[in-house]
Amino acid sequence: MRLILHIMEKQNKDTAILLLHCPDKQGIIAAVTQFININKGNIIRLDQYTDTVQKVFFMRVEWELEGFMIPKEKINEYFDTLLAQRYEMAFKIYFSTQKPRMAVFVSKQSHCLYDLLAHYEAGDWDVEIPLIVSNHPDLEHVAKKFNIPYYVFPITKDNKDELEPKELELLAKENIDFVVLARYMQIISPEMIRRYPNRIINIHHSFLPAFVGARPYHAAYERGVKIIGATSHYVTEELDAGPIIRQDVTRITHKDTVENLMRKGQDLEKVVLSNAVEKQIAHKILVYKNKTIIF
Amino acid sequence: MRLILHIMEKQNKDTAILLLHCPDKQGIIAAVTQFININKGNIIRLDQYTDTVQKVFFMRVEWELEGFMIPKEKINEYFDTLLAQRYEMAFKIYFSTQKPRMAVFVSKQSHCLYDLLAHYEAGDWDVEIPLIVSNHPDLEHVAKKFNIPYYVFPITKDNKDELEPKELELLAKENIDFVVLARYMQIISPEMIRRYPNRIINIHHSFLPAFVGARPYHAAYERGVKIIGATSHYVTEELDAGPIIRQDVTRITHKDTVENLMRKGQDLEKVVLSNAVEKQIAHKILVYKNKTIIF
Amino acid sequence: MRLILHIMEKQNKDTAILLLHCPDKQGIIAAVTQFININKGNIIRLDQYTDTVQKVFFMRVEWELEGFMIPKEKINEYFDTLLAQRYEMAFKIYFSTQKPRMAVFVSKQSHCLYDLLAHYEAGDWDVEIPLIVSNHPDLEHVAKKFNIPYYVFPITKDNKDELEPKELELLAKENIDFVVLARYMQIISPEMIRRYPNRIINIHHSFLPAFVGARPYHAAYERGVKIIGATSHYVTEELDAGPIIRQDVTRITHKDTVENLMRKGQDLEKVVLSNAVEKQIAHKILVYKNKTIIF
Amino acid sequence: MRLILHIMEKQNKDTAILLLHCPDKQGIIAAVTQFININKGNIIRLDQYTDTVQKVFFMRVEWELEGFMIPKEKINEYFDTLLAQRYEMAFKIYFSTQKPRMAVFVSKQSHCLYDLLAHYEAGDWDVEIPLIVSNHPDLEHVAKKFNIPYYVFPITKDNKDELEPKELELLAKENIDFVVLARYMQIISPEMIRRYPNRIINIHHSFLPAFVGARPYHAAYERGVKIIGATSHYVTEELDAGPIIRQDVTRITHKDTVENLMRKGQDLEKVVLSNAVEKQIAHKILVYKNKTIIF
Repeated sequence: MRLILHIMEKQNKDTAILLLHCPDKQGIIAAVTQFININKGNIIRLDQYTDTVQKVFFMRVEWELEGFMIPKEKINEYFDTLLAQRYEMAFKIYFSTQKPRMAVFVSKQSHCLYDLLAHYEAGDWDVEIPLIVSNHPDLEHVAKKFNIPYYVFPITKDNKDELEPKELELLAKENIDFVVLARYMQIISPEMIRRYPNRIINIHHSFLPAFVGARPYHAAYERGVKIIGATSHYVTEELDAGPIIRQDVTRITHKDTVENLMRKGQDLEKVVLSNAVEKQIAHKILVYKNKTIIF
Repeated sequence: MRLILHIMEKQNKDTAILLLHCPDKQGIIAAVTQFININKGNIIRLDQYTDTVQKVFFMRVEWELEGFMIPKEKINEYFDTLLAQRYEMAFKIYFSTQKPRMAVFVSKQSHCLYDLLAHYEAGDWDVEIPLIVSNHPDLEHVAKKFNIPYYVFPITKDNKDELEPKELELLAKENIDFVVLARYMQIISPEMIRRYPNRIINIHHSFLPAFVGARPYHAAYERGVKIIGATSHYVTEELDAGPIIRQDVTRITHKDTVENLMRKGQDLEKVVLSNAVEKQIAHKILVYKNKTIIF
Repeated sequence: MRLILHIMEKQNKDTAILLLHCPDKQGIIAAVTQFININKGNIIRLDQYTDTVQKVFFMRVEWELEGFMIPKEKINEYFDTLLAQRYEMAFKIYFSTQKPRMAVFVSKQSHCLYDLLAHYEAGDWDVEIPLIVSNHPDLEHVAKKFNIPYYVFPITKDNKDELEPKELELLAKENIDFVVLARYMQIISPEMIRRYPNRIINIHHSFLPAFVGARPYHAAYERGVKIIGATSHYVTEELDAGPIIRQDVTRITHKDTVENLMRKGQDLEKVVLSNAVEKQIAHKILVYKNKTIIF
Repeated sequence: MRLILHIMEKQNKDTAILLLHCPDKQGIIAAVTQFININKGNIIRLDQYTDTVQKVFFMRVEWELEGFMIPKEKINEYFDTLLAQRYEMAFKIYFSTQKPRMAVFVSKQSHCLYDLLAHYEAGDWDVEIPLIVSNHPDLEHVAKKFNIPYYVFPITKDNKDELEPKELELLAKENIDFVVLARYMQIISPEMIRRYPNRIINIHHSFLPAFVGARPYHAAYERGVKIIGATSHYVTEELDAGPIIRQDVTRITHKDTVENLMRKGQDLEKVVLSNAVEKQIAHKILVYKNKTIIF
């Protein structure tokens, strides 16, 4: 059953996805939908949201390209000229036929990596994973199971300046669109963050902003909280302070040791990270002033 | 702070709220937003959803009436003529200045009633509660605390045919818009349901469709479930089978007795019922084929 | 049904409740249960927990006093002599027939107060509420509804030293066992905390330790979290840092304004506070080194 | 850090685990703990629960065997003679050094299988997985990745009588202790259930008892529920009616298609199943009259 649905969806799927935000004004939705309708595009999903405090308008619209009168390679230009300039829009257009390319960074723990790869191999996501990067050799056996090249850059605080440029070269060579830190235990340099702005997704093993930094489960245990959490977010220069994509929590009790918190937390981490990755792949996340709008 | 925000919102608040659904076609959003924009209405919130399986389009749009060029009392007619007929829309227009009138039905348990009245008295909701109806005298003291008339109709299976018409008379006389069954333990007659279609909200003390009917906590205990729930829904002729508005759950263990389930369940019931009432008052619920679209 | 169960439970209920903790050693459970069994007490509930990191043993045991061979007023002495000294126990014995006396402190928001009083009036809790204290006159109408004396002490930062002693006098005169801060918006002085150690329960409107201090909903909104929470805890000298009793959370989205967070948060606050109060009344909370063990 | 904790725990770990239930009487805990203490066993965890409705006492106690005066192979006999007969106990003793052997049954979906194997390979669980059984060849590639023998028995309704005995032979030959149905889409025969009573764990993709049987996500979609769930339970002869081990839920909206429900549900299924397997491996589940007591 599932497979059939999947195939049906795939067949329909030559679509364009437009993400935009702009100062809120009257008539934007009408203007955008008319642009698509007049040119014979069939809208299959439209989401919009107005931040009435900041007076900013956000929109995601997806339409079928079959029969659309503007050629694919001209859509960006036409939209820019006819609409974006008039409404001062920041916008981006994606095509469903172009699979994003994702790099996974890991250290020693495998649970998030396995979860990502299980989704990948099951065909859940329209994505390519051309490589896995690590600062340790430990998880090479996992990469091998899935036939994905595994690169070890034994980065430490001290050699980061020297080794990260080589990582960046590799990512550039492989045309990586975004990076997923799947329990990668090294701080990313500002240079790398600048190259992939709001395109590096991290999983932090606490309910942010509680327990920023190292050893959050130990801190949660010490504080005696009754609920623990996990947070996926984009990486920015301030540690664990980037735009939050997804959070989830689970209840704990006084009986739970630090090791229990780690075990229970792993189930949160993998699901919260995969959820963020899924939204990223589907182009459903807009970032504005360190917050996410998720459609 | 809160009060200030509240007042600010109140001041802005002469708005129209349009709820509609129709067969999905190209251009509906554009047409509706143009209708509002051209007549100088300022849209402050727009939500829409397309059921791509059934090909039905749903929309809720709220706009400020200040400066709107169509007089309030003509909006319905104009919208019908200019748009609804063309797109085969079922629609309804509400005005924020017209507070809906809500009747509360209770039996012997007070927790839901207190929660509704606490919201009411705190000014959380734009609603009037002109009366409370019960089949028992037990909760009159609660009604008295809040100075709300309390009517006892000692309805049983046997005298329902005789007493319910009097209830309906009272509701009609008081211009009741919708009815809230706050743990009211009598089955509502088909006649009353016909008079208030999708306008009678019930709270069922289980996670529907599990444990339909009487004594769901006993049934949950017997079955050994690990989570219990509560469900608010519109009342239809089939018992506990109407459109679901809101559900919530809480985790239980083998240690919980039936009485514990009842106690824990009460916290769910009151919050789940109040949530549904809040959505109802704000005209955020659309019903289509026994399901709700909630904006 | 519920009432019948309630009465049945009430009839069984002349019990003693022993709470203790001590260094973990072999044989403690055996020794305590033998003390009760040999003297013909019937244990109806026993909970124990060993913190294997700190090597501390915690226990709560409740037994029926009918037929118990040690007279009620001697149990404390006998237990101290025969067991507590040998095992270096810190312990406390409560009797189900002695209802604790609870004072409620409020400011201007009514939702937590209503929830506490609704439980109280429904007979859910074995407690007395002889008075409500506030720094504002606003909620006197609520107290009046429930016929509970309402005392206004218009405390500010500046006059706290002068007015709090009078509050403490009142609490002492009324034999208050514990205090519940039901959205009371004044910081409690160290002197009052010393008088009621681990006996002042506060509700903080965030998921602690995130968003300590004032205006947590505003801070949560600014940070762009995807889940908000509420925390009930004992008050200690360090602000919002006392032992946590209960936490709960609810999911939010980018659509939620600060005012929405406040509204959604209120449902959490009242349930999380009432849950803590219920555990307190039932003597199910042990505190050890700024953490709670909850049976 | 995690690895270090793990090793520490492993080193301490020659323990016995006793699970028992019996009619509730005075003095059972004292008798059992004395049996262990007198023979110089150090209790590291004790959990007990009394079902006061059915008057049944349940207990799990784990103690270190180092220095325990009764030889390992005699503990069962001694406990039976000295305690079990006197108190009419049903009991079972496990040793931490004996890893249980688990068989995994799958059909075509891989998400639960990957989650189980990721835990297994990460060393989270003290278990052996000597084989994977399927009615389809589809997931052999997963088994191969983890070097676990994969057996295909193309069972259908029609050939079940012929093929299941061969499966049972294989399970017997491999000394399988319990079976995990990881989205295995064939009904298990009564004969197999009799051979593994309360030792076959299934994951059902709904919040039982809602949506028993086939296609629960379609049924949930049709009914318009606002929350979906997953349930792990022991398999009994009545379909989806065995003792429930673990349940979890996630919130959905009107926007979710059946395919979305399936995708969201998979995250629940894998976590809920793995949680049950973890409890099973740790001998933390007692079954009594079609319900579980989970310590």
